[in-house]
Amino acid sequence: MVAEELFQRKEYPILLVISGPSGVGKDTIARSLIDTAPDRFYFVVTATTRPPRPGEVHGRDYFFLSNDEFAEMIENDDLLEYAVVYNDFKGIPKQQIRDALGSGRDVIMRVDVQGAATVRKIIPNAILVFLTTESEEELERRLRERKSEAPDDLSLRIATARQEMKRIDEFDYWVINAEGDQDTAVHQIASIIEAAHCQVHRSPVKL
Amino acid sequence: MVAEELFQRKEYPILLVISGPSGVGKDTIARSLIDTAPDRFYFVVTATTRPPRPGEVHGRDYFFLSNDEFAEMIENDDLLEYAVVYNDFKGIPKQQIRDALGSGRDVIMRVDVQGAATVRKIIPNAILVFLTTESEEELERRLRERKSEAPDDLSLRIATARQEMKRIDEFDYWVINAEGDQDTAVHQIASIIEAAHCQVHRSPVKL
Repeated sequence: MVAEELFQRKEYPILLVISGPSGVGKDTIARSLIDTAPDRFYFVVTATTRPPRPGEVHGRDYFFLSNDEFAEMIENDDLLEYAVVYNDFKGIPKQQIRDALGSGRDVIMRVDVQGAATVRKIIPNAILVFLTTESEEELERRLRERKSEAPDDLSLRIATARQEMKRIDEFDYWVINAEGDQDTAVHQIASIIEAAHCQVHRSPVKL
Repeated sequence: MVAEELFQRKEYPILLVISGPSGVGKDTIARSLIDTAPDRFYFVVTATTRPPRPGEVHGRDYFFLSNDEFAEMIENDDLLEYAVVYNDFKGIPKQQIRDALGSGRDVIMRVDVQGAATVRKIIPNAILVFLTTESEEELERRLRERKSEAPDDLSLRIATARQEMKRIDEFDYWVINAEGDQDTAVHQIASIIEAAHCQVHRSPVKL
C-alpha cells in the first residue's frame, strides 16, 4: 500500500467461516450475527441431505436435498467442498460463494471442522473462527438435549467433537458460545469482522 | 494449543500502540478509548520535554520533564525508546511498561511513527495501529488549527506527515479518525482489541 492509496480506503468484503464441533451452536450464532445487520452480511446457504429441524426453512437455513439431488451436484462439480457428516451429506454450492462475493457484502459461512480446512486451502485469506462451548460437559449436555439424535449417534458425536477440538490450531480465532450468553459470542465475531476491515495487509477474497 | 487447554481460555493482556502522524488525534482517541472502560486498560504515560497543552495534566497525559530530567532518564537507560520529535524529546519510561504489564490489563500506548517501529522490534507481538485522517487536506487543516505550532513548525510537520504516511505497511491495522466522528475510530480500535483476545495463536507480551 502506498501513501496515495491511504486516503482511498479499500473496503474489501471479507469471508468468515464459523466452524466448530456439532452442537456448539454454529447455526444459531451465524443467524444471530446476520440479524444484527442483514444488509451487511451475505449468508452462504449450505446444501444438506439431513432432514430439516423444527423451524428450519429451505433456502434460508439450508438447501434440503435428496440423496439423488446431492449426488447430481457432486457429479456436476457444483460444490466447493462436501463431506459426510454423521451419515448425512453437507456441501457448499459454488454458486452460493460466487453470488456472495458478487454481492459486495461480507460473506458468512457455517462449515464443519473438516470443511473449514478445505475452505482454507481454496480461499487462503478466509477468516476461520472456531466456535466452542465453555466446557466439554456443556458440549455433551447440548448434544444430549438435541432430541433429534439417536443414542448411537450421540456417542459418535461426542467422540468426534473431542477429536475436532484438537484441530483448533488450524483456526485464526476462537469464540466461546457460553450457555445463556450468546450475545458475547456474536459481539466477538462482529469485532473480528470489524478488525479484519482495518487490517493493513488485507487482499480481496477470490474464488 | 492442545484440546485440554481449550476450556481454560488464557486471557493474555495485549499491548496496543496507537500511532500516526502529528495532528491525527492520537491523544484524543487514546483518551476516549481508555474512558470507555478505565478498569480494563492501562494507559502508558509518555515522558516529554514539550510544554503542556491546555488541559493536559502531568502524570496523566504526559510526564512533562525538563531537558535535564529527560537527559538523566536517557543516561540511566530508563527509556524503552526515545526520539526528538519537532525539537522536543519524547520517550517511553520502561517502568511504565513494567507497571502496565504487571497490572494484568490491556496496555495502550501512544507513540509517534518512528517510535512504533522501535516498539515492534522490542515487543514483536505488540499490535500496531496507524491512525490517520480521512484526507491529506484534513490533516493539514488540523495542524494549521493547532494554535500551539509556529508557522515554520507547521510546514515541517506537514512534510513529515507525508513521509510518515508511507510507513503504513509496517503497521497491523489502520483506522481513520474522521472529523466529527471519533466514535467510529474508538469503536474500531476496541474491536481490534477484542479480536486480538480471540486469536488462537496469541502469546503473552514480554519485555
